[in-house]
Amino acid sequence: MAVYLDNSATTRTAEKVIEAMSRSMREGFYNPSALYGPAMQSEKELKEARETVAKAVDANPKNVIFTSGGTESDNLAILGHALACRGKGEILYSAAEHAAVKKACLEAEARYGCKAVEIPLTREGLVDMAALEGLLGENTMLICVMQVCNETGVIMPLDEICALRDRLAPEAAIHVDGVQGFLRVPFSLKKSGVHSYAISSHKFHGPKGVGALVWKDGFRFKPLVFGGGQQNDLRSGTENTCGIVGMAEAVRVYPADGYARMLEMKKLLVNLLMEKLPETTVIGLPEGSESSAGHILSVAFPPVRAETLLHALEGEGIYVGTGSACSSKKGKHSAVLTAMGLKNELMDGAIRISLCPENTEDEIRFAAEKIIAHVNVLRRFARR
Amino acid sequence: MAVYLDNSATTRTAEKVIEAMSRSMREGFYNPSALYGPAMQSEKELKEARETVAKAVDANPKNVIFTSGGTESDNLAILGHALACRGKGEILYSAAEHAAVKKACLEAEARYGCKAVEIPLTREGLVDMAALEGLLGENTMLICVMQVCNETGVIMPLDEICALRDRLAPEAAIHVDGVQGFLRVPFSLKKSGVHSYAISSHKFHGPKGVGALVWKDGFRFKPLVFGGGQQNDLRSGTENTCGIVGMAEAVRVYPADGYARMLEMKKLLVNLLMEKLPETTVIGLPEGSESSAGHILSVAFPPVRAETLLHALEGEGIYVGTGSACSSKKGKHSAVLTAMGLKNELMDGAIRISLCPENTEDEIRFAAEKIIAHVNVLRRFARR
Repeated sequence: MAVYLDNSATTRTAEKVIEAMSRSMREGFYNPSALYGPAMQSEKELKEARETVAKAVDANPKNVIFTSGGTESDNLAILGHALACRGKGEILYSAAEHAAVKKACLEAEARYGCKAVEIPLTREGLVDMAALEGLLGENTMLICVMQVCNETGVIMPLDEICALRDRLAPEAAIHVDGVQGFLRVPFSLKKSGVHSYAISSHKFHGPKGVGALVWKDGFRFKPLVFGGGQQNDLRSGTENTCGIVGMAEAVRVYPADGYARMLEMKKLLVNLLMEKLPETTVIGLPEGSESSAGHILSVAFPPVRAETLLHALEGEGIYVGTGSACSSKKGKHSAVLTAMGLKNELMDGAIRISLCPENTEDEIRFAAEKIIAHVNVLRRFARR
Repeated sequence: MAVYLDNSATTRTAEKVIEAMSRSMREGFYNPSALYGPAMQSEKELKEARETVAKAVDANPKNVIFTSGGTESDNLAILGHALACRGKGEILYSAAEHAAVKKACLEAEARYGCKAVEIPLTREGLVDMAALEGLLGENTMLICVMQVCNETGVIMPLDEICALRDRLAPEAAIHVDGVQGFLRVPFSLKKSGVHSYAISSHKFHGPKGVGALVWKDGFRFKPLVFGGGQQNDLRSGTENTCGIVGMAEAVRVYPADGYARMLEMKKLLVNLLMEKLPETTVIGLPEGSESSAGHILSVAFPPVRAETLLHALEGEGIYVGTGSACSSKKGKHSAVLTAMGLKNELMDGAIRISLCPENTEDEIRFAAEKIIAHVNVLRRFARR
């Protein structure tokens, strides 16, 4: 049995998505900027995809542009907004942010002269609200906070952050990296105080190489790439029609009860582990907390090292992650876990188990059984 | 019979490409940055794709990065190089450049303080070498000239331009937009004096949303997007594995005799048109010139207007373009044709017929027959 439990790194592309993309490449391959009928049909498919994405996040379809993925979407919002604001003011970003956000903020500082300031985290991995309160002010230009942390699964208190912004920094915009939250954790751009929201298709069974930035009227940003003027001149380049059609199909087929299913599977997994391995340490918020996302579990079994356990599980056909896939090869401690003040032993041991709606009870029971067996063996060999 | 003759706008995705992408999405969907075996396999596929692209352009595989398309590749070379040079000096770009190049040069001027200067064209659409000679100097930072003009099909004299650069501006780099030339017109990055070269997958039967930038050791550029540090930190973001695998497959299956076939079909088409419509005006270099690309024919039948003819042909199932697809909806005169000094009547009448290796003699004869019939009817109604 192969059990894929690294869905926050990437997901298996859904069969219906592959079919929609194949159809798009066979029948809808025309350049949507061309003037004849079949090209108009390709343009119509783009329009429908925009509507599908807008509906999923409760936004206006005219405020959706397609990008090459989450990284570009985050960069576009942050660097584009900093440039539109002529680099004046401070950008605040949580210490939990993905490198796509954090490095864009630092680049905005280096390039445009604005100041980038990190917002500390609590020990549980949440934005430290008292610290944020101290940082906000009339000089704040942008606040970057992710919806769900890719490493710990904590759901950030966006409503509270928006309320604090309204009170202390009403001129500041709020950008949310929704890469790990979109379709999973309920979110309405219209109802929230958030200004821009980034998504990545390959995190919800769509293809890689495509994402979107969605924003609210009034959010200003300049483009990152220039050219033929596609997408209202905000993102030039022939639209990736097959990828966009694939992403829209992934949104359509994402199961309405997907999140509830994952939450249930995560509970089952934690219970099975806790029962047999009482020293299991859940990183971030305790399991069962309302702000702990149902699809991500960060857990350590000290003194077992994460990489050793990962490869032992790989031998069983079980795939899990260690922190963020993007930085997993660099062998450094996770910046997020460091910011949470975790001990080295926990950081060295943290594996990330991330679910998708297709994970079954059999898979979870199999994974738990193998984790327990390997942890018991590895503990004997691990140096304390 | 449906005859697609707008291959410079985009091409039909090859069946083998669709198959390779479907396989990649089904079996190779893993995040290439993850640590377990199947992810290593995805990383290996990326490596093979880099080698395939590098070989096709005679470059070092370590100097290939994958982007979201030709526009991003051009922007990365130009804006990235301007930033690496701290905006010092002049960027020269030919008046024939695609908007992705031209607008990136203008943006480099606006953002980084370098000066962007347009190189005029001859009446035939070639870079005006005398004018270029006058513009080159020790202050030149970058020269941007496309390999094949997307609107006229002229092949630019890259070797002469490189020689001129060696003599007059040895510190300047040369960026070539190879979007319309790659795989079609022979080019060796190693043997040429060119420093960087941009390609776009969907122009040679690969998928949309993927391209590459290839460069020679010593060419300096800064990234456009920041994040997880993928692709040696030059282009962050989870690699678009399925798109990249598709592009590499498109390179592999592109027929070795494709260009010769297109050249033959273009000759046939011009001969058929000339025979029955003696007033046919070929725009750019005369048909038969060595520097006129075999896959693009820009032609006018004054006083017939291009858009009218395009829609008449559409009614027959024949799809052609008018100038650049990207700007075709804006209803303005083409900047390229304007720079060539064409009369309004010719600019209003210019249609672009662009071929792919799969176009057959039957298709060409059918298209010629219908063009002749419609031009003869439309001429009677067109105001002189």
